[in-house]
Amino acid sequence: MALKKKPVNGMKDIMPDEMAIRDYVQSVIRDTYRSFGFTPIETPCMEDIANLSSKQGGENEKLIFKVLKRGEKLKLDTAQSEADLVDFGMRYDLTVPLCRYYANHANDLPSPFKALQMGNVWRADRPQRGRYRQFMQCDIDILGEPSNLAEIELILATTTTLGRIGFKNFEIRINERRILKAMAAYSGFAEADYDAVFITLDKMDKIGPDGVAEELIRDGYAKESVDQYLALFTGVAAAQDGLAWLADTLGDVLEDEVVRSMQEIAKAVNAAKMAQFELVFDPTLVRGMSYYTGTIFEIAMPEFGGSCGGGGRYDKMVGNFTGRDVPTCGFSIGFERIILLLMESGFQIPEQPKKTAYLIEKGFPGERLVDVIAQAQEARAAGEQVLVVRMNKNKKFQKEQLEKEGYGEFVEFYKN
Amino acid sequence: MALKKKPVNGMKDIMPDEMAIRDYVQSVIRDTYRSFGFTPIETPCMEDIANLSSKQGGENEKLIFKVLKRGEKLKLDTAQSEADLVDFGMRYDLTVPLCRYYANHANDLPSPFKALQMGNVWRADRPQRGRYRQFMQCDIDILGEPSNLAEIELILATTTTLGRIGFKNFEIRINERRILKAMAAYSGFAEADYDAVFITLDKMDKIGPDGVAEELIRDGYAKESVDQYLALFTGVAAAQDGLAWLADTLGDVLEDEVVRSMQEIAKAVNAAKMAQFELVFDPTLVRGMSYYTGTIFEIAMPEFGGSCGGGGRYDKMVGNFTGRDVPTCGFSIGFERIILLLMESGFQIPEQPKKTAYLIEKGFPGERLVDVIAQAQEARAAGEQVLVVRMNKNKKFQKEQLEKEGYGEFVEFYKN
Repeated sequence: MALKKKPVNGMKDIMPDEMAIRDYVQSVIRDTYRSFGFTPIETPCMEDIANLSSKQGGENEKLIFKVLKRGEKLKLDTAQSEADLVDFGMRYDLTVPLCRYYANHANDLPSPFKALQMGNVWRADRPQRGRYRQFMQCDIDILGEPSNLAEIELILATTTTLGRIGFKNFEIRINERRILKAMAAYSGFAEADYDAVFITLDKMDKIGPDGVAEELIRDGYAKESVDQYLALFTGVAAAQDGLAWLADTLGDVLEDEVVRSMQEIAKAVNAAKMAQFELVFDPTLVRGMSYYTGTIFEIAMPEFGGSCGGGGRYDKMVGNFTGRDVPTCGFSIGFERIILLLMESGFQIPEQPKKTAYLIEKGFPGERLVDVIAQAQEARAAGEQVLVVRMNKNKKFQKEQLEKEGYGEFVEFYKN
Repeated sequence: MALKKKPVNGMKDIMPDEMAIRDYVQSVIRDTYRSFGFTPIETPCMEDIANLSSKQGGENEKLIFKVLKRGEKLKLDTAQSEADLVDFGMRYDLTVPLCRYYANHANDLPSPFKALQMGNVWRADRPQRGRYRQFMQCDIDILGEPSNLAEIELILATTTTLGRIGFKNFEIRINERRILKAMAAYSGFAEADYDAVFITLDKMDKIGPDGVAEELIRDGYAKESVDQYLALFTGVAAAQDGLAWLADTLGDVLEDEVVRSMQEIAKAVNAAKMAQFELVFDPTLVRGMSYYTGTIFEIAMPEFGGSCGGGGRYDKMVGNFTGRDVPTCGFSIGFERIILLLMESGFQIPEQPKKTAYLIEKGFPGERLVDVIAQAQEARAAGEQVLVVRMNKNKKFQKEQLEKEGYGEFVEFYKN
């Protein structure tokens, strides 16, 4: 078989320019999250296929890269279906593995446990521009903290990180599953229809209020319900304080505690934030995953239509592994989108070391090379980046290339 | 299906203590290698199965985790064998992917290209203590540098890194495939038998010279050849300068240039080294992989029987992808073994930030939480690590646990 030079379909090789930015951003993320007391952990990239197919991954479960059984376990002759052939799968997110990890190790972990994960995930999506089948996720999660202290710390940690990377004028949109439900209940939708209604609501930023209303009518919901529902969103948008207006309007349908908690989060985040962003109550925010049980949030960048990350509270997932629920809240940075935005904006990494190239003429005697190398070692020990290379015939071109790589100084060593 | 709490068989969850050391070591590796002008790159964790099964991976090709085809490409009914079911595989090393990467991107990369890769690889080995089926590799490679400048820089970069992590009194053992061959030729072995002879020679450190001689005789080689062969190793060991003695003894069978280059490497490394180690000529060093074409080297730690990394020159592998050979030399640190040694020696990470925990009494009013969070934010901005948590009923126990995590200061916030 001929060897293939391209990476596998839908995945990419990372070139030096991008890699430098990725490493830098990862180090800012790691340092900032650590300052908030988050602890890096790691799980294997493969999970038991049963864990990945347990309905916790939503649509992602259709996109699993599955791993063939090996040795005696693989029984090609008697295999009836895919399920007989595979035992592991590549993880499609870091959330299911985190809950398994916590379920497995809770006795050895602090409570609450503040986890930081940076790792690749895989989804066998149809390849498309700017979207890859292997990509990095950066998640922070707090397990075992039922109060909104979790939400406050997650939002502050994430926004402080984004600010340190250099982002500003972005929005953190926040909503609550219980507000979503109260609005649907108030409008007269049946509880069994909530999820379907939210799927339509989720299209608000694409098709607008009219589009949402049209789709709901088309799906057979009562016109009065749809009108009343849409009026709520108009009301929130028009009000000085949308959340307060909504609380007033919904009355007993929405628990006071939900509103008070949202207000506390807003107050604390606004008082302590270390980046330029707005925390915005957005009653149209849905977030796809059905596992969310409380607050949900999303990062919106002015430079980028669509989400640059998000998260929320999911108090029931650890319980799926252990039978005992653990209140959990997480926030995920859309790492690949962040990198894309930085690449497109010509981002320069701050505080680079001095970069010097030593050019050694062909035929330079081996016994004198010792001194050149020793000189390079001293400069390196002093924090400099030193490249020792043979001088090319076309020295001018070589230097131009090296300048593009960031080498600003050249020392030339000639044989005579 | 019931959910599984354990990681998949043979792979491991990484706990916070180990993760902190791994992150620290990775940052030292990255910073040090960068100071030598190595450029981080990354390839996807999956490769086309044809690339992984092209006889470049030796025994590792038997250990591939294979990825099931998806969608229409998967034809269960007509599949005759494994090969019909899979299209991708998990990489078992970083060397084959690097050569594919270089073949694909050489026009966009500097020449020589100094690559740094840190990434996971997967091998479906029988699980055993301390050996996992997913593990990290850290490789540096120089592509396009035919001279021993590559070997010198690789050995200096690797040893400087190990020294910075805190290792000392280790050995870098070095040999040359051409010396291995010359010794076999001089002893009268047939060229077709070299590889088989080297497999036996590779057991020297386990079964000793007598064991090697015995096995060679048993395999049917002439007693005179075996005796002469073993006498060479005795001679090298007894000589003041083993390499010089060998060169003298082998005479024309060994090219002068090989010896001169090895001497230059030794001289430069010894003159410029920044760590406490010995560079030792070891004529018994074989290194398993058949792709090596020149120098080969290995790290030996006094604390650890067996290799903690190694590498060598492999001038032919890129040519398998492009039809045009590119001189290439690489050095891989045995990352997992390094981490194991550090964990076992009670390694402490230097220069940790100050770690403070804020303990907040239950019932602490939400409106005052704002000030606590703001205070935490200021300390974090000043470089401190601040954990904000609810105070447990058993505060004494909570503080003891936090002290184990490295929190040295506590600030307590009471509701009254």
